[in-house]
Amino acid sequence: MDYILAPSILSADFANLGADVKEAVEAGAKWVHIDVMDGMFVPNISLGFPVIKSLRKVTDAVFDVHLMIEEPGRYIDEFAAVGADVITLHAEATKHLHRAIQQVKAKGLKVGVSLNPATPLSALDYVLEDIDMVLIMTVNPGYGGQSYINKMDDKIKELRKIITEKGLDIDIEVDGGISAKNIAHVKECGANVFVAGSAVFNGDIASSTKEILKAMEAQ
Amino acid sequence: MDYILAPSILSADFANLGADVKEAVEAGAKWVHIDVMDGMFVPNISLGFPVIKSLRKVTDAVFDVHLMIEEPGRYIDEFAAVGADVITLHAEATKHLHRAIQQVKAKGLKVGVSLNPATPLSALDYVLEDIDMVLIMTVNPGYGGQSYINKMDDKIKELRKIITEKGLDIDIEVDGGISAKNIAHVKECGANVFVAGSAVFNGDIASSTKEILKAMEAQ
Amino acid sequence: MDYILAPSILSADFANLGADVKEAVEAGAKWVHIDVMDGMFVPNISLGFPVIKSLRKVTDAVFDVHLMIEEPGRYIDEFAAVGADVITLHAEATKHLHRAIQQVKAKGLKVGVSLNPATPLSALDYVLEDIDMVLIMTVNPGYGGQSYINKMDDKIKELRKIITEKGLDIDIEVDGGISAKNIAHVKECGANVFVAGSAVFNGDIASSTKEILKAMEAQ
Amino acid sequence: MDYILAPSILSADFANLGADVKEAVEAGAKWVHIDVMDGMFVPNISLGFPVIKSLRKVTDAVFDVHLMIEEPGRYIDEFAAVGADVITLHAEATKHLHRAIQQVKAKGLKVGVSLNPATPLSALDYVLEDIDMVLIMTVNPGYGGQSYINKMDDKIKELRKIITEKGLDIDIEVDGGISAKNIAHVKECGANVFVAGSAVFNGDIASSTKEILKAMEAQ
Amino acid sequence: MDYILAPSILSADFANLGADVKEAVEAGAKWVHIDVMDGMFVPNISLGFPVIKSLRKVTDAVFDVHLMIEEPGRYIDEFAAVGADVITLHAEATKHLHRAIQQVKAKGLKVGVSLNPATPLSALDYVLEDIDMVLIMTVNPGYGGQSYINKMDDKIKELRKIITEKGLDIDIEVDGGISAKNIAHVKECGANVFVAGSAVFNGDIASSTKEILKAMEAQ
Amino acid sequence: MDYILAPSILSADFANLGADVKEAVEAGAKWVHIDVMDGMFVPNISLGFPVIKSLRKVTDAVFDVHLMIEEPGRYIDEFAAVGADVITLHAEATKHLHRAIQQVKAKGLKVGVSLNPATPLSALDYVLEDIDMVLIMTVNPGYGGQSYINKMDDKIKELRKIITEKGLDIDIEVDGGISAKNIAHVKECGANVFVAGSAVFNGDIASSTKEILKAMEAQ
Repeated sequence: MDYILAPSILSADFANLGADVKEAVEAGAKWVHIDVMDGMFVPNISLGFPVIKSLRKVTDAVFDVHLMIEEPGRYIDEFAAVGADVITLHAEATKHLHRAIQQVKAKGLKVGVSLNPATPLSALDYVLEDIDMVLIMTVNPGYGGQSYINKMDDKIKELRKIITEKGLDIDIEVDGGISAKNIAHVKECGANVFVAGSAVFNGDIASSTKEILKAMEAQ
Repeated sequence: MDYILAPSILSADFANLGADVKEAVEAGAKWVHIDVMDGMFVPNISLGFPVIKSLRKVTDAVFDVHLMIEEPGRYIDEFAAVGADVITLHAEATKHLHRAIQQVKAKGLKVGVSLNPATPLSALDYVLEDIDMVLIMTVNPGYGGQSYINKMDDKIKELRKIITEKGLDIDIEVDGGISAKNIAHVKECGANVFVAGSAVFNGDIASSTKEILKAMEAQ
Repeated sequence: MDYILAPSILSADFANLGADVKEAVEAGAKWVHIDVMDGMFVPNISLGFPVIKSLRKVTDAVFDVHLMIEEPGRYIDEFAAVGADVITLHAEATKHLHRAIQQVKAKGLKVGVSLNPATPLSALDYVLEDIDMVLIMTVNPGYGGQSYINKMDDKIKELRKIITEKGLDIDIEVDGGISAKNIAHVKECGANVFVAGSAVFNGDIASSTKEILKAMEAQ
Repeated sequence: MDYILAPSILSADFANLGADVKEAVEAGAKWVHIDVMDGMFVPNISLGFPVIKSLRKVTDAVFDVHLMIEEPGRYIDEFAAVGADVITLHAEATKHLHRAIQQVKAKGLKVGVSLNPATPLSALDYVLEDIDMVLIMTVNPGYGGQSYINKMDDKIKELRKIITEKGLDIDIEVDGGISAKNIAHVKECGANVFVAGSAVFNGDIASSTKEILKAMEAQ
Repeated sequence: MDYILAPSILSADFANLGADVKEAVEAGAKWVHIDVMDGMFVPNISLGFPVIKSLRKVTDAVFDVHLMIEEPGRYIDEFAAVGADVITLHAEATKHLHRAIQQVKAKGLKVGVSLNPATPLSALDYVLEDIDMVLIMTVNPGYGGQSYINKMDDKIKELRKIITEKGLDIDIEVDGGISAKNIAHVKECGANVFVAGSAVFNGDIASSTKEILKAMEAQ
Repeated sequence: MDYILAPSILSADFANLGADVKEAVEAGAKWVHIDVMDGMFVPNISLGFPVIKSLRKVTDAVFDVHLMIEEPGRYIDEFAAVGADVITLHAEATKHLHRAIQQVKAKGLKVGVSLNPATPLSALDYVLEDIDMVLIMTVNPGYGGQSYINKMDDKIKELRKIITEKGLDIDIEVDGGISAKNIAHVKECGANVFVAGSAVFNGDIASSTKEILKAMEAQ
């Protein structure tokens, strides 16, 4: 299993985004987590197509696009066109989750499904074999400054157990309240892709990235 | 009447946004037009709070925030907090236009109302006295690369006539298909605030800005 | 033209509603204004069927039911069944205003159309002949404690002029910020049905009712 | 000005639709009116793509497709693909009427805009020059068996006056309660395209069609 | 475990609400069940803020506020402000159940989650540890006069078993079709908070309350 | 257990629908599958009340009406009135599934619940005893030309196991990608009602029907 750090640009300096992202990538981050929020699915409006398109020109890092939007199936073509590599859909955002997953796959991209904190794992019962990643929200999406929800430990563990029992090869990503302090713990629960926002983009991006990478890679 | 150029950042380089905007401002642009799109009111998702917040730190230019979102009244506090100076609401986006206008004014900001191409001027019958600006969409919002809709000449002229007859002091902004080629014509119709996207952010930002400013200021 | 006071129960004591309403009616109020709010059309949830049904048993006053709800056509039968005499629909709340008006008339009730402060009078162009009353909102619906919007003077005057020119017999009701202090002024503009909430239900209901009735009837 | 009868298939026998339509067309009807209802914009679900596609194979008559659906812009491509010649959109069904009109025109089809009975003519202020037809609803859409709303006489007359004054060449279609009895009257008001349902498809289709055509063409 | 009777004011006399509620409370009811319905989540509009606010002044009983409204997170502040002690949210009414639960807890109130008859218990998988009560709807919400759905026996039993196995201290409330006749049976299934409407408010409130309390407390 | 073929009229010739359906019925099909799509729940608009009503006059076959529409509870009366025998509701289309099921049963009709490919079987936990049929979507609803989703084999098997264990008598219908080639396989998984569209209505309806019936009935 690969362990991956995905710095979330939500905490970067948008006046200087290319430089911030390049610094994190050069310090060792392989993925860039891109939070798209529409003010409908979540109470925040963040960024969309033009921002991703500009950023695509300055880095070859994997673009991990997390769609916190209603009916994500409406915009798969557009997100593919501006340079997404992984597209993650919220199970709560559509009644046609299987269809939206196929739309992403038809573009040749990797696909993830994200679950809000209260959403049960049964939402994945008939799609797990179709997807590359599950994103377990460890805070409520749309807000900054929240703490990791401890109950999500169980959800990560139970999901990793199901994946292992089925013999699948699926990443578990976690998003919310992740820092160098708790990354080892969450990794032990079974997560292997770690989103970090303010823990990375907080002044000295390079050293923060290295510190959290080191904590992630510790045995 | 002041004549104002408001370069739209939708056409800027979002990997390097601060520098692009500063170049336009230093070349003479006094306003920065910020297009917020939610993928619901219009079929495009552009940018939101974090982008504006970062940009606010690098310039003192007037932030002219154009909300192409459903129910804009939900987010007035947030747009004020990240640094908007003018907030423009679409008449079509809310059933409570008077209330949303008051929400902006209560923040001490200037307030505009925007009309889609098909929306009649009667939408303004009982709010014109309350507002600082009317934004006449001269293309359909949410898309790039459209041409100026010629029929909007009449709308601008009729609105300027109403404003003059009522003795009011209200800006008329136009957005869509504006360039150095037609700015004099649109100004003659009665507009005085001009949004320009690809006509400004297209390589040599400084000289493009100066060229369009010159065309705008020509007698 | 009849001049009518319609105390709004929104300001009454709901632990003792029957007594409060009876006191206002015995003091001379002929109508009772009943504000139904659904938390969707307006940001407030007030009351609905069971409250009206109970109140119907204690008074014969005219029940003037003001539906601040989305798609009022869904519930006309129910409001008729619990005892409404007049049902007022918001023009902004339905795309099928003519149909909803006919639904009320089919129940043998009087029908009104209400306009939010920003809504133009053109909304009435093809329904004025079908209705008994227009309710001009003189504050934004759904909130308490607002002041009368002065610009609504013009709207009332223009509407009264249209009604007179067409030779129609239609009531103009006003709702929001009405008290003994301004009722004569609003009457002069052309209104003849006056909603008053805190101006009536404020301690000594009987004398408040009489005071405002006196102001209303003054020549 | 051409006078056109457009039999509405809503009243035809759907077990035998091809034959019914051919009979009306052979008796002289040049257009076929096709009512698409989605159960959302109107409280009825009628028919859609597959029905039109099958019907397209049996007749060359003009297919006059009336979209009583929410957000008609979503499905213009599909209606064009199954064989529509004219597509009529409801002004109430979209906040982006100008854009939806352009979508139809981009397909090389004729475009109409329809107005519910209560909708004012101001909805057309800035689109009239762009369209081929206005459909004045003379009953409320979505129901059968309603009578012609007499107040619509005024709307037709006022619209024809505007069209004439502007020197435009635009059809006025009427839909609802039209029969051989009142067609001459409605024609005199200014309409020139007449939808008729049960007046055509009522047993002897050929003679009903001829009767109503005769009434339509009478001087 | 405490056994609690929660008379639902939906069946009380709203012209005389304070007296009705006081009679039930003096007869031994410790909670008052307050059904808020918005006409959207359920096909009924019942009551909201002003009714609760008035009632709060006449009794110290626990206010058990059951929100049968869409997106209950919008109004938690308001329900707290008018005097709610327990706020129960429907799992079906929001995609962000965990967040809404935290909103209630942040106000220092007790929080419940309600499940419609068809909703599976898996909806509670990751929130059970966070809440004080589960409300099992034993009829479909929004209607009166329905019978207890027998299948809900299983749901109550299964939920009580889960709660016991996890060693939690959570109330199970039941709402719909509860009376002195079946309360012992439902208690045996595992419920401990019982909503009763017409079984309490039906003429002699005091003796009805005592009768149902006696049935509830019987061993 | 009965094995039933339900030809879907979506693939029939709508210009000649009565004849097509009669040919399939005379060739041995006992049910007719009628796909109602509203363009909202699924991205297709197919047919509604008037089509079913006309078809009802030409055959006594069982009308198996599959509602791919939002909030199906709104239209149960209408579908019953035009001649439905079985009405199938999507679990994803309403928050009040138990109530909608009871509405169908109150009309004396058989009731089914349909699940989209991603929807877990837990959606049926508390309604299975109330219904006559479960429709497992074996493609995503609303599109033609899709292949059978192999993962649905598991869902059918698991559901048949639950039904058998509970000792219930419930049909399992499958819809999507079913033909003479795979019907034996799907039957072996546990399905007993088979929807087939293009496999039936494809030229020689009678022989296609007989071929697929033969494959269905093979031991």
